Amino acid sequence: MAFRLTPQERGFYPLFTRAAENIVVAADELAAMVDAVPADRPAIAKRVKEAENAGDDVTHEIMVKLNSVFVTPFDREDIYRLASSLDDVVDAIEEAADRIVLYRLDRLPAGITMQVDVLRRAAVATAEAMPRLEKMSALQDYWIHVNSLEDEADEAYHAVLAGLLSPAEAPTDTAALLEIIKLKEVVDTLEEAADAFETVANTVESIAVKEA
Amino acid sequence: MAFRLTPQERGFYPLFTRAAENIVVAADELAAMVDAVPADRPAIAKRVKEAENAGDDVTHEIMVKLNSVFVTPFDREDIYRLASSLDDVVDAIEEAADRIVLYRLDRLPAGITMQVDVLRRAAVATAEAMPRLEKMSALQDYWIHVNSLEDEADEAYHAVLAGLLSPAEAPTDTAALLEIIKLKEVVDTLEEAADAFETVANTVESIAVKEA
Amino acid sequence: MAFRLTPQERGFYPLFTRAAENIVVAADELAAMVDAVPADRPAIAKRVKEAENAGDDVTHEIMVKLNSVFVTPFDREDIYRLASSLDDVVDAIEEAADRIVLYRLDRLPAGITMQVDVLRRAAVATAEAMPRLEKMSALQDYWIHVNSLEDEADEAYHAVLAGLLSPAEAPTDTAALLEIIKLKEVVDTLEEAADAFETVANTVESIAVKEA
Repeated sequence: MAFRLTPQERGFYPLFTRAAENIVVAADELAAMVDAVPADRPAIAKRVKEAENAGDDVTHEIMVKLNSVFVTPFDREDIYRLASSLDDVVDAIEEAADRIVLYRLDRLPAGITMQVDVLRRAAVATAEAMPRLEKMSALQDYWIHVNSLEDEADEAYHAVLAGLLSPAEAPTDTAALLEIIKLKEVVDTLEEAADAFETVANTVESIAVKEA
Repeated sequence: MAFRLTPQERGFYPLFTRAAENIVVAADELAAMVDAVPADRPAIAKRVKEAENAGDDVTHEIMVKLNSVFVTPFDREDIYRLASSLDDVVDAIEEAADRIVLYRLDRLPAGITMQVDVLRRAAVATAEAMPRLEKMSALQDYWIHVNSLEDEADEAYHAVLAGLLSPAEAPTDTAALLEIIKLKEVVDTLEEAADAFETVANTVESIAVKEA
Repeated sequence: MAFRLTPQERGFYPLFTRAAENIVVAADELAAMVDAVPADRPAIAKRVKEAENAGDDVTHEIMVKLNSVFVTPFDREDIYRLASSLDDVVDAIEEAADRIVLYRLDRLPAGITMQVDVLRRAAVATAEAMPRLEKMSALQDYWIHVNSLEDEADEAYHAVLAGLLSPAEAPTDTAALLEIIKLKEVVDTLEEAADAFETVANTVESIAVKEA
């Protein structure tokens, strides 16, 4: 754009950065929670919930700003999509953490650790990219990176799904089957978080292409 | 907006009101259905289905009007989102009613009654707010109310999920576990309806902030 | 629109046609897979995956074009929605194919064949309609047809759900129940594909109404 943005309009950039940094916090807490002994998990889940609340506040701030400023640094729909998909990431992370505690899922399969690890790396990549939105610098590296992380997340998801639902030995009692049903919900939710990271990256690509 | 809307363009307001009043009908029928003896439920589910069909007609009318008028009372995307999220509410209510009958879920846990009760109150709040869109009056009270109802819905949802999936006594036979799987689908669908009410409220807030 | 589109801007039409023709390929492969003996399915699932990848490429081409051209043949949001919903169709078809193999679902209920058959017909109707977008000819026939196919898909979905979850004889062992859980995921995913076809049709209607 040829004209200069006022500080008010430039205010979107720090908000996106805050939203992404908050996702790093949520993903780190989720990783800590998966590693922790079951007794420690409720306290950690609470901190994930706090990150989700902090994320809601940032999303709300972005939406209010979006609706009240006349000029935006990029398309309104792109700002809306970027804020919504960042919000979707933290919502899914919080839901996964919540279910682990609510369902008393004491034993988590190794595949969940792998899924969470990919989420952490996607979170860091996203938090590093957001401040570069203003200068539109090195964004292509970011979205290519997140797309490859999404492939990694898909593989981890597949492996854990196969292990849960097509195990070498089928579950012989209803308690074991109920456990599978509950774990599948967590695993699906983690995959949703990975998908939402990809939507964030696609939106950034969309913004960058328009500016090019 | 400084210029005056023609009757044609103002025609959106009664349509949103009709959509929301129709949701009240659907939510009331769903509540009646949950209270009814199983033998009476198919007939009530049919009336919920009729409300869903009526909702589809209103949504379609809004979309056709949106695409054919040149001037709209607020942003096209907001009209699209408002109509879509009202449609999502009635779709979820209908799906829940349908599954209760299709799956022959004779005994419904008390938590479902609580979820449906919150939906009814959200429906009434929404139907009361829609006519106020034209004058943009007292809308903040509405969206704060719906946001607090959404918190209540979340709590009911959590309680019923914990009761179903982490019961004091684990199900010992496959029939009981199948029942849990089916009830979980209903419970999840009711939570989707609550979420869709929140999206309606967020969209109204978005519209109101722009007009302020 | 009164002005003439350049070849660059008209380039959207062949891309939508390619996306829809690619869905026909994916749906045909899925149908072949459902008919095939289990041993042949992994190879066919691979071809469905290739169709999904081809679809991703077309979607990406549409989005890049959308972001880089100044004039579009119809509303940007409609192009975005049309491309996204075509992408959703092929994603759901691929996910269904993938799960059948991943979960080693050797025996598929007849209802799944019916669901897939409706998807194939919706795919053909969509592929025939896309080239007519440019002249806006005979589009109403198409969306009425897809809406009636969606009703047919709903019926097939209902029948297969009832058969799976409210069977005449309840499953008596956990292996049978696990099978039901896995089949339900496939059946739900096929219903998502049918819903996405309806979104494609609704978007085409939306575009046509604006142009009228």
